Amino acid sequence: MAELAGERVLSIQSHVVFGYVGGKAAVFPLQCLGYDVDVINTVNFSNHSGYGRFGGTKSTAAELEAIFKSMEMNELLVPQRLLTGYIPGAEGLSAVAGLVRRIKAEKPNLIYLLDPVLGDSGRLYVAADVIPIYRNLLPLSTIISPNWFEVETLTQTQLNSIPSLQTALKLLHEQYQVPNVVISSIPLKPWLLSALPQSIQPPPDSDYLLCISSSSSTDPISPTSQVHTQCVPLISGYFSGVGDLFSALLLAHYIPHHTSPPDHPEETPLSYAASYALTKTHAVLERTNEFACTLPEEERQSTDDEKDHAEPLRQTRRMRGRELRLIQSQDIIRGDGIGEPRRMECWKGFWDLH
Amino acid sequence: MAELAGERVLSIQSHVVFGYVGGKAAVFPLQCLGYDVDVINTVNFSNHSGYGRFGGTKSTAAELEAIFKSMEMNELLVPQRLLTGYIPGAEGLSAVAGLVRRIKAEKPNLIYLLDPVLGDSGRLYVAADVIPIYRNLLPLSTIISPNWFEVETLTQTQLNSIPSLQTALKLLHEQYQVPNVVISSIPLKPWLLSALPQSIQPPPDSDYLLCISSSSSTDPISPTSQVHTQCVPLISGYFSGVGDLFSALLLAHYIPHHTSPPDHPEETPLSYAASYALTKTHAVLERTNEFACTLPEEERQSTDDEKDHAEPLRQTRRMRGRELRLIQSQDIIRGDGIGEPRRMECWKGFWDLH
Repeated sequence: MAELAGERVLSIQSHVVFGYVGGKAAVFPLQCLGYDVDVINTVNFSNHSGYGRFGGTKSTAAELEAIFKSMEMNELLVPQRLLTGYIPGAEGLSAVAGLVRRIKAEKPNLIYLLDPVLGDSGRLYVAADVIPIYRNLLPLSTIISPNWFEVETLTQTQLNSIPSLQTALKLLHEQYQVPNVVISSIPLKPWLLSALPQSIQPPPDSDYLLCISSSSSTDPISPTSQVHTQCVPLISGYFSGVGDLFSALLLAHYIPHHTSPPDHPEETPLSYAASYALTKTHAVLERTNEFACTLPEEERQSTDDEKDHAEPLRQTRRMRGRELRLIQSQDIIRGDGIGEPRRMECWKGFWDLH
Repeated sequence: MAELAGERVLSIQSHVVFGYVGGKAAVFPLQCLGYDVDVINTVNFSNHSGYGRFGGTKSTAAELEAIFKSMEMNELLVPQRLLTGYIPGAEGLSAVAGLVRRIKAEKPNLIYLLDPVLGDSGRLYVAADVIPIYRNLLPLSTIISPNWFEVETLTQTQLNSIPSLQTALKLLHEQYQVPNVVISSIPLKPWLLSALPQSIQPPPDSDYLLCISSSSSTDPISPTSQVHTQCVPLISGYFSGVGDLFSALLLAHYIPHHTSPPDHPEETPLSYAASYALTKTHAVLERTNEFACTLPEEERQSTDDEKDHAEPLRQTRRMRGRELRLIQSQDIIRGDGIGEPRRMECWKGFWDLH
């Protein structure tokens, strides 16, 4: 990991006291991998919202601006990398967007991973007026890591066929000038499953999710992008902070000058980083799930809206039992004894599909 | 380190975006050593105040209370250990004091390290009305880690002789019922130097600081406390966050049921923890200092109030160059290749001195 060490990351996302989402899921892994992390908290909450009840404060745009201003005045805005996640509200996001523009103007080589945290499974987490601000931010990014729903929202494209997926990726790469897109945890709908090359198909009768990475082609006459993909076994149940951990690991392992090794000639810097991020995130999730299974029954009741509503602590205890075992997985994060990650595979014919 | 892992620490102290003081100096080391850390930020500042200029917000007592309340409601106030540091203002500290009382009432075995952050070298960092609140908190603590000035302030005793030091420690152990006191970085004034046992004396003509640990005696007929001490070579210049790092490591390595090994029969759980904390903190500081020495000249200008005032960035750059190399010292923090720490030595005749 020596190749990764020594750089500075500015992380702008949520903070929770208890548990591992937002900055709590991202900062420690980045630190373990040798990055100095400057940490701006967009909220200070007791716990993530999945618990049903939470307390604390959102940072106002004025509070964020005061921090940015002091950092600029003190010459402390010196990151090589930038990671933005959950930023609630249009005013705060506009303040961050202004900051990103100023950093980028001074450092065109800034590596910016933008995780456009908007919502999931058809539901927005944020006010709708942040969406156009994210669209304006996209051209400043190096990598984006939206989920399925966020791709649909940003591109205003319903993803229900290979051509619609191609349209969305084309929009992101060409209209929004995003060089690198990674979509993790894609449900394997029949139209997607049947389009996958034989070598990437998961075993039949099992639950898998798909991860797709897409890097703008640098070859002017070749198709839009190089697409890589991998199927990951689904671990059932609800875990929080997985996307935040994945994005942090993706940024940590992204090496712009990475050259493909002889045994993986089609590897891109993005597919290389996604391979590491996916392997490690999945291993952390497996360890978390194994731990959750050892808890007493009252800590692992399944989701049941009616019962949860009648007894809020039922939901709380379930959530607590499923917090990421991040601290207990630092060996995984550092890569001790993991060896080579499972590689993302090149999806050669992707752009020829109809 | 397996013996330490698996517990949960609640840390309540300052947060800075850039650099390593308060929580930024304490949380990562605790995490590296296997603790899940719940992190409450008493301030969200851009950088520490030594830079001269900083921006951000202090959490109000109401904001802290809202977080405490949600955590209690959600059964998330479940730490085995508690670490409190910089808490500006009497209202916020009173809110924290209330919380400590509630946790302690439910968990009498809570290990509470109270770092009474008041000031240094004769200057208060906090409003004077926090001092009596800290005095009321002392009986709830397991360990306190004041500096020299903080001992003087809390005990209203000027430390200028061995009897005055005995008086202060007696007050802390007996009146304030603090079982464990560690005072690090004590200037070796002539009266203190001359009182040290020969085996503890530092080499002549060299700059050393003293660390003293004092554990209440469990033997009703023996003297007030067991005192251990060690001299540490002074690394010149101003470093921030050293005390915060030391306190975190002290808490991390404190094992209440630790039994003294045959080769160190007088070792207490406190002197054992202080040995580790001192060895590791000093090693991090050495690494930081080595790095600072490699920086270009403009990053390592010495303190000069007049020049600093005329050109504020002079001070800023010096501070930036002296931020702890914490991320680059995670091997030290984990104890890789460090072996046994240098042991605090028992100061047998301390209570017989006049």
